[in-house]
Amino acid sequence: MTQTEPQMIDAGDAPEDGYELSRRLVAAILYAVDVSDREKLVDLMEPLHAADIADLLEQINAYDRMRLIRLYDKEFDGEILSELDESIREDVIGILKPEVLADAVRELDSDDVVDLLEDLDDSQHEAILDALEDSDRVAVEQSLNFPEYSAGRLMQREVVMAPDHWNVGEAIDHLRSSEDLPEHFYHVVLVDPRLRPVGNVTLGKLMRSRRDVALKSITEEMFHIIPATRDEGDVAYAFNQYHLISAPVVDENDRLVGVITIDDAMAVLDEEHEEDIMRLAGVGEGSLSDRVIETTRQRFPWLAVNLVTAVLASLVIAQFEAAITQVVALAVLMPIVASMGGNAGTQSLTVAVRSLATKDLTGSNVWRVIRREVLVGLVNGLAFAVVMSIIGVLWFGSMQLGYVIGAAMVINLVVAGLAGTAIPVLLEKVGVDPALASGAFVTTVTDVVGFFAFLGLAVVVLL
Amino acid sequence: MTQTEPQMIDAGDAPEDGYELSRRLVAAILYAVDVSDREKLVDLMEPLHAADIADLLEQINAYDRMRLIRLYDKEFDGEILSELDESIREDVIGILKPEVLADAVRELDSDDVVDLLEDLDDSQHEAILDALEDSDRVAVEQSLNFPEYSAGRLMQREVVMAPDHWNVGEAIDHLRSSEDLPEHFYHVVLVDPRLRPVGNVTLGKLMRSRRDVALKSITEEMFHIIPATRDEGDVAYAFNQYHLISAPVVDENDRLVGVITIDDAMAVLDEEHEEDIMRLAGVGEGSLSDRVIETTRQRFPWLAVNLVTAVLASLVIAQFEAAITQVVALAVLMPIVASMGGNAGTQSLTVAVRSLATKDLTGSNVWRVIRREVLVGLVNGLAFAVVMSIIGVLWFGSMQLGYVIGAAMVINLVVAGLAGTAIPVLLEKVGVDPALASGAFVTTVTDVVGFFAFLGLAVVVLL
Repeated sequence: MTQTEPQMIDAGDAPEDGYELSRRLVAAILYAVDVSDREKLVDLMEPLHAADIADLLEQINAYDRMRLIRLYDKEFDGEILSELDESIREDVIGILKPEVLADAVRELDSDDVVDLLEDLDDSQHEAILDALEDSDRVAVEQSLNFPEYSAGRLMQREVVMAPDHWNVGEAIDHLRSSEDLPEHFYHVVLVDPRLRPVGNVTLGKLMRSRRDVALKSITEEMFHIIPATRDEGDVAYAFNQYHLISAPVVDENDRLVGVITIDDAMAVLDEEHEEDIMRLAGVGEGSLSDRVIETTRQRFPWLAVNLVTAVLASLVIAQFEAAITQVVALAVLMPIVASMGGNAGTQSLTVAVRSLATKDLTGSNVWRVIRREVLVGLVNGLAFAVVMSIIGVLWFGSMQLGYVIGAAMVINLVVAGLAGTAIPVLLEKVGVDPALASGAFVTTVTDVVGFFAFLGLAVVVLL
Repeated sequence: MTQTEPQMIDAGDAPEDGYELSRRLVAAILYAVDVSDREKLVDLMEPLHAADIADLLEQINAYDRMRLIRLYDKEFDGEILSELDESIREDVIGILKPEVLADAVRELDSDDVVDLLEDLDDSQHEAILDALEDSDRVAVEQSLNFPEYSAGRLMQREVVMAPDHWNVGEAIDHLRSSEDLPEHFYHVVLVDPRLRPVGNVTLGKLMRSRRDVALKSITEEMFHIIPATRDEGDVAYAFNQYHLISAPVVDENDRLVGVITIDDAMAVLDEEHEEDIMRLAGVGEGSLSDRVIETTRQRFPWLAVNLVTAVLASLVIAQFEAAITQVVALAVLMPIVASMGGNAGTQSLTVAVRSLATKDLTGSNVWRVIRREVLVGLVNGLAFAVVMSIIGVLWFGSMQLGYVIGAAMVINLVVAGLAGTAIPVLLEKVGVDPALASGAFVTTVTDVVGFFAFLGLAVVVLL
């Protein structure tokens, strides 16, 4: 693709509902692979963006993927590697010929190479570093010195800067004479003599100001400096919260070492959300292109934790065997109380986990939120207590059974509101990701309390 | 704040771990409100970004909020309104004096005003429209003609464009002479004589090219046009997938009507994720600042659906009352099978819902994914069958009880994998948001199958 032919991805390729790869296109591509028609394959893939090609490679099976990549050969470009899901990136790199891999990697910006290297094993790591030119390799290796998931890893090292005493004319002349400006940049970063960033000037303002205007006088109102060691999740939060477009990154001496742009921050925000949602559901790091054995291994621990939880609940039930033998309706109704508690707990839990992630749940309002959740549990508990009492009476003809299940429902929904909020807050306080661990704890509480309250009350009232 | 004093939000205000509002600052602000010290209040709020002020207003209670806003008075600016959560925006607008509201609204860009208006009742709607200048009001009213959650509502109408036959010099002269360019823009959009967008030129490239270079020859490789009626979720997806910075929006005649920038797309992506996570947990539209009664009302329907599910499961158990009376261990162990199935189902479900949202699960790979999930269920089912058999034997001393629970476990985990993937795929096919409805269906399946398989096998094998 050349610079002068803008790439149009629109109506033609995309189906009505948006951006999904059309099934027909995938079929045509796989057919070209089947008959080893390289020309046709290149033709079909030509209009696709690297991100779409990566999606395609993730969607087809491992055998088709290998044949496609071998046939596509030299056309394979670095951006596809950047876009690929980590789960199959290693496979794909293993399939590429060394010279194709080297060419592909050399096209990438330093921050993309860093991102690529993070998940590779040592031999592939070396192969990629060796493919880089010396200056790029040094830049990449310096970035790798920053901790994983830090701003230092996320930033690009190519920064457009200007001394803070320059005027507009000097800045424009400098830009025009620079050979290797980054492909995309939005600000000129002003720095003091010690290379500390002091302000951002947008290109729009630069272009519209007279040549003799001091850069200092046209800096942006919103200016946010990011330490290189800051966690990338916090960086994404800051971009979203303060509507940043790009932000300078500084080392421990406050010297400018790079810049982070909003597109990288957006990608991180997307990943963090994905991680939260997967962790809440107990799915760890999984991806759609993982194989059966990997997926099984990822999900096993979560199910194992749940088994312990379930066995604990069963131990509670076992204490009431005598009661169940006498009134078998207890066995029929007891899962309802536990299930409602589990659901109400998950509701409170999800709100708490998200509010912690977006920093909306803080020391200032935690007690008010807990009080609210408990009250919500109480009100909903009372409503369902009435419903369940009626069901109890109609189904089993026992007023007392109705009272028991109603009372147990209220107790369990109040406890669910309390545990659903307090557990993630406590986990956050001790430094454990609440999305990761809260679910198991909250369900344990609602199961145990649900069975105990219902069966315990039944023993007192009915027997 | 003036243009020449960059606003620094850094180490000083922010605590170690990032961007959370410090409890001490909140306390100091509330104290200033208590003693009606306006000067102190303005002083304390001065360094805060509008987004942080909005967070503050969300975190304090309704009474403090009202007093704070009354005391803050004229300092209240429009951006705070934009940043506020919908749940309290209406309250806040009700508290502001009409002239303060008018001033606040006039500061905003047209797209922010549109966003503000969407959730307001009619009288507030009118008040805000009346506050706008005529030209702005027309722009806002035109945007409101586009469907809710469409690109047309999201875009800003201020576009920097140039005829596609211009050269760099003409474009720069035009920019320099324009009075009312938008505050932030990243591209000049080239349009043909019929006002159809044909390419984007970045400001950086414009600035570095010679005056006689044709704009057409320096357009960006990646160029993506968005129809005004496209859903905002799809827009956010396109920005994230194709790393767009800004994209032109066209009407039904392909004429340029506005532009969407990445910061707006990022906000939408954030909202969509939030929505998914909340819907998966059955929490609807809730927010942390809702009151008890609203929260109760939002959560009630989800719990009611769960109650129906739970009663269905109980009906299954009721069929086996006789068996339970004979072997009470069945009542003790049966929740384990249902609980494991529910968890495994939620795992498969979450992966499927997310993959559908990111368009990674398509017609091309749906069967392979279903097969994988079923196999994962089988393998994990076998593993836990062994564990449970051992528990069954050790606890109840019955080899046969061990077999029964093991077999039921395998069946339920296989069904969980199948239902967890197939149900969201089917819901998506019939146009229902899978995040919204899948959970209840999947849990119903795993509960019913879990109890039925375990108790049914028990009857066959044990009695």
